[in-house]
Amino acid sequence: MHAILVDKSKRISLDDISTEPPKSLDKDDANRELAELEEELSELQELMWGARQQGVLIVLQGRDTAGKDGTIKRVVGALNPRGVHVASFGVPTEEELQHDFLWRIHKHTPRKGELSIFNRSHYEDVLVVRVHGLVPESQWRARYGHILDFETMLSQEGSIVLKFFLHISKEEQRKRLIDREKDPSKAWKLNPNDWKERRYWSEYSRAYEDVFAYTSTDFAPWHVIPADSKWYRNLAVAQAIVRALRPHKDAWVAELTEKGKLGRAALRSLEERDDT
Amino acid sequence: MHAILVDKSKRISLDDISTEPPKSLDKDDANRELAELEEELSELQELMWGARQQGVLIVLQGRDTAGKDGTIKRVVGALNPRGVHVASFGVPTEEELQHDFLWRIHKHTPRKGELSIFNRSHYEDVLVVRVHGLVPESQWRARYGHILDFETMLSQEGSIVLKFFLHISKEEQRKRLIDREKDPSKAWKLNPNDWKERRYWSEYSRAYEDVFAYTSTDFAPWHVIPADSKWYRNLAVAQAIVRALRPHKDAWVAELTEKGKLGRAALRSLEERDDT
Repeated sequence: MHAILVDKSKRISLDDISTEPPKSLDKDDANRELAELEEELSELQELMWGARQQGVLIVLQGRDTAGKDGTIKRVVGALNPRGVHVASFGVPTEEELQHDFLWRIHKHTPRKGELSIFNRSHYEDVLVVRVHGLVPESQWRARYGHILDFETMLSQEGSIVLKFFLHISKEEQRKRLIDREKDPSKAWKLNPNDWKERRYWSEYSRAYEDVFAYTSTDFAPWHVIPADSKWYRNLAVAQAIVRALRPHKDAWVAELTEKGKLGRAALRSLEERDDT
Repeated sequence: MHAILVDKSKRISLDDISTEPPKSLDKDDANRELAELEEELSELQELMWGARQQGVLIVLQGRDTAGKDGTIKRVVGALNPRGVHVASFGVPTEEELQHDFLWRIHKHTPRKGELSIFNRSHYEDVLVVRVHGLVPESQWRARYGHILDFETMLSQEGSIVLKFFLHISKEEQRKRLIDREKDPSKAWKLNPNDWKERRYWSEYSRAYEDVFAYTSTDFAPWHVIPADSKWYRNLAVAQAIVRALRPHKDAWVAELTEKGKLGRAALRSLEERDDT
């Protein structure tokens, strides 16, 4: 099984999902497709920014070395930085711990027209918090509901929410951790804790499987992205984002036309693009 | 009917609820009781601050001149300002309007140990927004659910939520608006819009009645406070706050004792107070 949109009605097992690209896909073809998608994404972002009707929230989760930073770099690289906001959520500060777990998250949700990318997120509060028993089980269990409610509200108030789990194999992680140890330019990313967290591999798998089962919805779906190959990971993420934004294009163009913000030349170029 | 805790199971009509103090209550007796309650409140606040287990969120709503500022002044005056946070929510800024309606609210929720008072709140998004049709009906209607979810989450993550509607009569409002016009020291509070909003008196009554019916819960109850007399308004609000905090006192004392933060002298004085 490959890059998948999690279907809430059936439980998935991470061990059954490949971390590798589909055999039928060639790297060069994939990169060509990615380049086209990035061009389309850039255009969609401009329309979204101008129309100010929706924001986009992209949640990136994954084990250490899964490629969250690399994915963000690639997505952001394709966009106009004016309308992008990246927020990284590490160990909560003393102040953050004195509030509910969504307090630090809510501040960084996208404004209309904007695309926010979360490097880790509120999901850590049902992942690392669960695996290490940082709060009582009744409390983290209640958070599935709080997360659903929160994302329902964001969606109904105008955000497009997309969630990605970058899925790597245990062997691939081992290679990447060793790479970090050897490569001085990557050494800053090495955290002695990474090797320790690796011992909880299957506990994290179970915790993620529960996250998918409880929080993948039509309006805020989870995608499991085979991420052992960076070229496929980047393609699969770009595909999912473009697919989610495309249906809004006509409404954004209509809004911009109404506002008189789209010149004739721009409209004609959009029409030509649609014809091809 | 007087100062009431709204029972979600039966719909109330504001026109049936008195805006005046109970006839049986004497102003001097009320002020004596208020002084005692304020002393108890101050002690409860110190314990809550030290224990850092709960925060308190007090939502104040009411028509123009209902006495929100005066109530806040009185409550805050009884407390140690170190642990109090007052947030006023006026017309949303351009930036706030580009986010969901809870975005600007969530930032000001109390940290553990703290008491936050909201002068107006997220309820404006189902009150003024409804009365003046600022968003489509389907959107403001969905907000009842979002508010319930939000307050459920705050409560389960450790906040005590209390909501007050300061209930004045139309005649009392007329007097107070005229007072503002005459008194130079109050003139800054006068907003030409206040007289205009007054024309929507019954529309606001219906909107508040729906708010009570949909959002009064055991964990975040609404109180309708007869507010034509300031002395009774202050007493009724203080009573409700103290009643909500009192049940937590033993747990806070236990937490402080465990932390070794309560000296013997302080403990003895608390025990003596309980005996009286």
